[in-house]
Amino acid sequence: MNRVFLRLAARALTQTRRPWQHQRQWKRCLGTTADIATKTAPKLVRQGSESGIDEHPGDHQFSLQWPGATPKTVLLVRKANDHQVDSALVQIAQWFHRTYPQINVVLEPAVHAQHKKALPYALTVPEGQTTEYARTVDFVVTLGGDGTFLHVSSLFADEVPPIIPFSMGTLGFLLPFNVADFAAQLCRVVEGAATVLPRMRLVMQKSIDDSPVHVTNEASIHRGTYPHLTTISCFLDNHLLTTSVGDGIIVATPTGSTAYALSAGGPIVHPLVSSIVLAPVCPRSLSFRPLMLPPTAVVKLQVHRASRGHATAYVDGRPCGGVVQGESIEIRRSPFPLLCVNRDDLAKGWAQDINQLLKFNRTFSHPHETPFDEGG
Amino acid sequence: MNRVFLRLAARALTQTRRPWQHQRQWKRCLGTTADIATKTAPKLVRQGSESGIDEHPGDHQFSLQWPGATPKTVLLVRKANDHQVDSALVQIAQWFHRTYPQINVVLEPAVHAQHKKALPYALTVPEGQTTEYARTVDFVVTLGGDGTFLHVSSLFADEVPPIIPFSMGTLGFLLPFNVADFAAQLCRVVEGAATVLPRMRLVMQKSIDDSPVHVTNEASIHRGTYPHLTTISCFLDNHLLTTSVGDGIIVATPTGSTAYALSAGGPIVHPLVSSIVLAPVCPRSLSFRPLMLPPTAVVKLQVHRASRGHATAYVDGRPCGGVVQGESIEIRRSPFPLLCVNRDDLAKGWAQDINQLLKFNRTFSHPHETPFDEGG
Amino acid sequence: MNRVFLRLAARALTQTRRPWQHQRQWKRCLGTTADIATKTAPKLVRQGSESGIDEHPGDHQFSLQWPGATPKTVLLVRKANDHQVDSALVQIAQWFHRTYPQINVVLEPAVHAQHKKALPYALTVPEGQTTEYARTVDFVVTLGGDGTFLHVSSLFADEVPPIIPFSMGTLGFLLPFNVADFAAQLCRVVEGAATVLPRMRLVMQKSIDDSPVHVTNEASIHRGTYPHLTTISCFLDNHLLTTSVGDGIIVATPTGSTAYALSAGGPIVHPLVSSIVLAPVCPRSLSFRPLMLPPTAVVKLQVHRASRGHATAYVDGRPCGGVVQGESIEIRRSPFPLLCVNRDDLAKGWAQDINQLLKFNRTFSHPHETPFDEGG
Amino acid sequence: MNRVFLRLAARALTQTRRPWQHQRQWKRCLGTTADIATKTAPKLVRQGSESGIDEHPGDHQFSLQWPGATPKTVLLVRKANDHQVDSALVQIAQWFHRTYPQINVVLEPAVHAQHKKALPYALTVPEGQTTEYARTVDFVVTLGGDGTFLHVSSLFADEVPPIIPFSMGTLGFLLPFNVADFAAQLCRVVEGAATVLPRMRLVMQKSIDDSPVHVTNEASIHRGTYPHLTTISCFLDNHLLTTSVGDGIIVATPTGSTAYALSAGGPIVHPLVSSIVLAPVCPRSLSFRPLMLPPTAVVKLQVHRASRGHATAYVDGRPCGGVVQGESIEIRRSPFPLLCVNRDDLAKGWAQDINQLLKFNRTFSHPHETPFDEGG
Repeated sequence: MNRVFLRLAARALTQTRRPWQHQRQWKRCLGTTADIATKTAPKLVRQGSESGIDEHPGDHQFSLQWPGATPKTVLLVRKANDHQVDSALVQIAQWFHRTYPQINVVLEPAVHAQHKKALPYALTVPEGQTTEYARTVDFVVTLGGDGTFLHVSSLFADEVPPIIPFSMGTLGFLLPFNVADFAAQLCRVVEGAATVLPRMRLVMQKSIDDSPVHVTNEASIHRGTYPHLTTISCFLDNHLLTTSVGDGIIVATPTGSTAYALSAGGPIVHPLVSSIVLAPVCPRSLSFRPLMLPPTAVVKLQVHRASRGHATAYVDGRPCGGVVQGESIEIRRSPFPLLCVNRDDLAKGWAQDINQLLKFNRTFSHPHETPFDEGG
Repeated sequence: MNRVFLRLAARALTQTRRPWQHQRQWKRCLGTTADIATKTAPKLVRQGSESGIDEHPGDHQFSLQWPGATPKTVLLVRKANDHQVDSALVQIAQWFHRTYPQINVVLEPAVHAQHKKALPYALTVPEGQTTEYARTVDFVVTLGGDGTFLHVSSLFADEVPPIIPFSMGTLGFLLPFNVADFAAQLCRVVEGAATVLPRMRLVMQKSIDDSPVHVTNEASIHRGTYPHLTTISCFLDNHLLTTSVGDGIIVATPTGSTAYALSAGGPIVHPLVSSIVLAPVCPRSLSFRPLMLPPTAVVKLQVHRASRGHATAYVDGRPCGGVVQGESIEIRRSPFPLLCVNRDDLAKGWAQDINQLLKFNRTFSHPHETPFDEGG
Repeated sequence: MNRVFLRLAARALTQTRRPWQHQRQWKRCLGTTADIATKTAPKLVRQGSESGIDEHPGDHQFSLQWPGATPKTVLLVRKANDHQVDSALVQIAQWFHRTYPQINVVLEPAVHAQHKKALPYALTVPEGQTTEYARTVDFVVTLGGDGTFLHVSSLFADEVPPIIPFSMGTLGFLLPFNVADFAAQLCRVVEGAATVLPRMRLVMQKSIDDSPVHVTNEASIHRGTYPHLTTISCFLDNHLLTTSVGDGIIVATPTGSTAYALSAGGPIVHPLVSSIVLAPVCPRSLSFRPLMLPPTAVVKLQVHRASRGHATAYVDGRPCGGVVQGESIEIRRSPFPLLCVNRDDLAKGWAQDINQLLKFNRTFSHPHETPFDEGG
Repeated sequence: MNRVFLRLAARALTQTRRPWQHQRQWKRCLGTTADIATKTAPKLVRQGSESGIDEHPGDHQFSLQWPGATPKTVLLVRKANDHQVDSALVQIAQWFHRTYPQINVVLEPAVHAQHKKALPYALTVPEGQTTEYARTVDFVVTLGGDGTFLHVSSLFADEVPPIIPFSMGTLGFLLPFNVADFAAQLCRVVEGAATVLPRMRLVMQKSIDDSPVHVTNEASIHRGTYPHLTTISCFLDNHLLTTSVGDGIIVATPTGSTAYALSAGGPIVHPLVSSIVLAPVCPRSLSFRPLMLPPTAVVKLQVHRASRGHATAYVDGRPCGGVVQGESIEIRRSPFPLLCVNRDDLAKGWAQDINQLLKFNRTFSHPHETPFDEGG
């Protein structure tokens, strides 16, 4: 996370030197972000810790602040085809317009088209200029499930602005806030009083020529429907770790530890643990135990030249192309974590989440008793 | 279970030839079982199966019948020190006296002493003559938890009469009936309309000179508090299966598969599966997977001569003496299963039990969604 | 296995009454099985057990005998495209011709075409008359791996003659004999001195109209490459057992317990245990433990109507068609086990197999020691 | 690890200001450490990383340097009662005397007594002054197994000097070097060319009045031989995480992840992962999955007031007193990691270790093949 500070500091400097060709007068009538200012640089300030030990910078939540400025632009992202979500989106946009009229409200094109009558002041990105998201958006509000949250990643090439995710009902690991409470939470964000949890991401790269893909939950190689087991060699920093025969291999973030990796038998990893999980899917082995690798690990998964089956690469459950015998994917930590606005008390929230969402450690209702406690 | 038929049939024959020295006139005033008749031989009749396949005799529940007679003697066993249980016991004894006055109600000595005023007609076993239980009792009613149920085993040397267990509240694998429903269930037993589930038991023997101990849930060797790991060699029919270094080894019945063996990582075994579970406790190995052995297996667990630690044998959670280096215990199926009066529809009841009691397969509340389902 | 006796007995009767239209004079020149006699009925005789307990009929190996006759026809099945295998096949066929000239040697059409010059006396099945296998073959010899062994099932509609499988090198659960030893083992089969292990099979049926498919290892439903998790309801004898969200569900035989079900976390089941394994593949649950169901269980797996993903059915790793929302497959025990010629001492062989093949319970090389054993 | 720098820096300052009452002339004749100088402050210098990402300070190995000085004192610690070990110890002491005569060789009293004839120049700590170890020792050489290594912790109250551990044969996670190679490795240490792996330790404290105990592998609460399951509430930063009924709970370091926690089902954690493992021992639950907690976590394990059984606390396998109902232990990261001299290429060494020592991911010898690959 040192890096976060460094980057933010670096940008604060460079921004002042940039020729601000976009920073013309703000013209709401045009309805696109082309006319609005470049975003404000946020600052993450380390919060105190309870344990009294001098901790690593990566082990904390941070305070999200806007030094010397206020955020100028918010992007609202929604789950599609859900009437309740659309209604909340309109309500939040109107609230912004009323409460913080200086803040630009940006919508994705399809959403903008749908709601421009109700929200005449809303903006959208000009056609074909998706880099506008990265240039302008100070923070993102999501409405919907985890999928909506994950979708945000795809709008930004690398660095993603702070995200404040709202659930329409059930809370979750990635959805700490109920939409019913949106006004209070959004005020905290705008006023620089929110708490941010930096969630480690990975990047997956198939070959040097391919562009790297950001990973929020997990990257994996899986045989898919191919009936033969796939043989995959796993390398750690270019040293062969193991060669696995089975359905596949998962490489997950702490965030992803409660997704597919958990189904595959991996541990539950607290989001402030800096580590990469490597877990097999249905290995032909009794002795493949999940591994916790250092955050600095460079993991390579190579479909073995002698593998009977080929395979497919997946990122966050989405297929990313075939991987034939001899080919490999490489996975390493991204320098750009997701900055998730979160509840202040992470330990309490996480304890609630693993109990309520994962049904963690449900003790049997009816313990077998030992015979000598009872009887006449 | 063929054996059950054979034994029951054999006894039906021999009983008619025995000199009935005990079968004097029934003298309630003496208050002991010495004066009552030898028990009626029950008969287990195979029930139809849904699958239409010609199954093994051990794969069924049975109908409990009393051919040519009715049961003459019931033993009531209770959990100690529970006012609610004592009240139910008195109520059931009175119900028997009223409904089936020809049936002798027998209580264990301490229970008899406590309740003889309220139940002047109740009998108990004469001092020092515990074989009277086996001679006289036609069926057993238990009131309390699993422990009370397991306690019944200890009153009978080998064969145990059919047991009808009542729970005071929470139902369980071994407690299919609520005491509130006792009259209906007991009528079914007496009238020969009850269903019986034969639950496999094991016998554990430490050495040829020791008497075998009956096992309802599991026999095990565990290092206890001894800090060194114990090295245990496991033999199957005198062939070395494996040598395990760890906290211990569990050998369990299907009934015990949901007790300690489940905590140690074993599978959930339906009670009509004829098999013996072998599972390790905290083995120093990544590759010790639980084993399902045939019901005919003779399992020997030997503390290795080179083991750094010695250990203790346990049966159903109760310590049964130390096992030093070079010593072993042997475990095999008992010819005397527990005949448990049960719900007619075992599949339905078992499905309920694993869901309600074990919290089987609780799916996560909030599935991670895939990103391309959502977003604008 | 009672059933085995019953069927064999039943056939012994019916065969004498059949109009033997095929039983013409044996004409080797025609080169097909059309001219050879119907097979001899084998008899399985129960072997003694070591434990001294009166066991269930399903818990034993059997002696394979040919009462009042000798086997007349052997089918040789081979792994394709392996020069070493073809060489062994020719050698065995020649050995039969020399040692037991009265025994017909049958080959599958492609094998027959390849080797008819070297083996002019070999027969094959007439075109389009695959029922000839069932009519004529007394026993089967396989040469190759497990796949060759499994392939035999597909040549017979239901009942499969005794199989004697030869490995070309590595022995295995299904490959107890090395081809180097073929003469001694084949003599034992022909002379009625071999031991047979009956391996339970299952039948999988997609709908009432579909024909049932025999299962040697496992039937399963899996999402395949479909990215959404599949929701599958599992029924036991028509009672809902659980509804699983995940990659899939496996229903396996004891034989299949060391195949895909083992990779999915299931226990290792001895082949003489009469039970059906139900295990999940990557369930979205912390609490889905493998289940051991009775051999009489009728298991239904239904893709839930609300499942986001559909799925594919597989038998022994081979796709058997899609299963859409609302559809189900039903799995139950087949009355026709595979009769596998096996080593006499099953316990010893099985112990070897799980150790050598599965690398069962490999203890760590370098146990962590406790601190107070050591140091100055 | 920032803290390491801070502490080392802090000491460098304070040492120059300390009144060096011990720093008298060096009198070898007295044979104790009382007369030798206070130790040299080592310096840990961060090594380059392969991934090119700006990493956390805790994710690296370090170079061990002695800025502006050379180490003055080495402590040799040995496994007791092993002739081969004693012989190596004498050889190493003589080598030091010959190669680096300015370096004091210190032995524990019993070792000193045994070898003072062969090693007349060796020193020992004065009776009752165990703080001398901390005052004087620059680095420690251990000869023996993991136990010897762990024993070193007990000689130092908190900060432990760098340790270079030699195995007498089998290498291990904690034993990267074979004693046969001692000269080369010790030269690297003295000359400031060695690599150090900082291994996180924990401290366990039973109550505010008790002194904290350092933990290298794991702290745990276990029911021991007490037959009743123990109910333990686990708190994370004072928030209730879960209440477990079972045999016990383990809280382990990454180093301890391959010890008892691995036997209990925990993941394999690379030593450069900053995390605390929480794993249950035989829980009465299907859904207790191991947890990876942040290094800053304060974990409290409390025996529940309603627990039927009490329990015992253990540190690194050694009993540390009873824990009755209502009592608790608290575990947190120690600011004093063990500084272990290690191989330069940690990734390679770790990959070797998990494969050779833990028999990680042993693939089955004989993969089940799919039927349609084979057959004629």
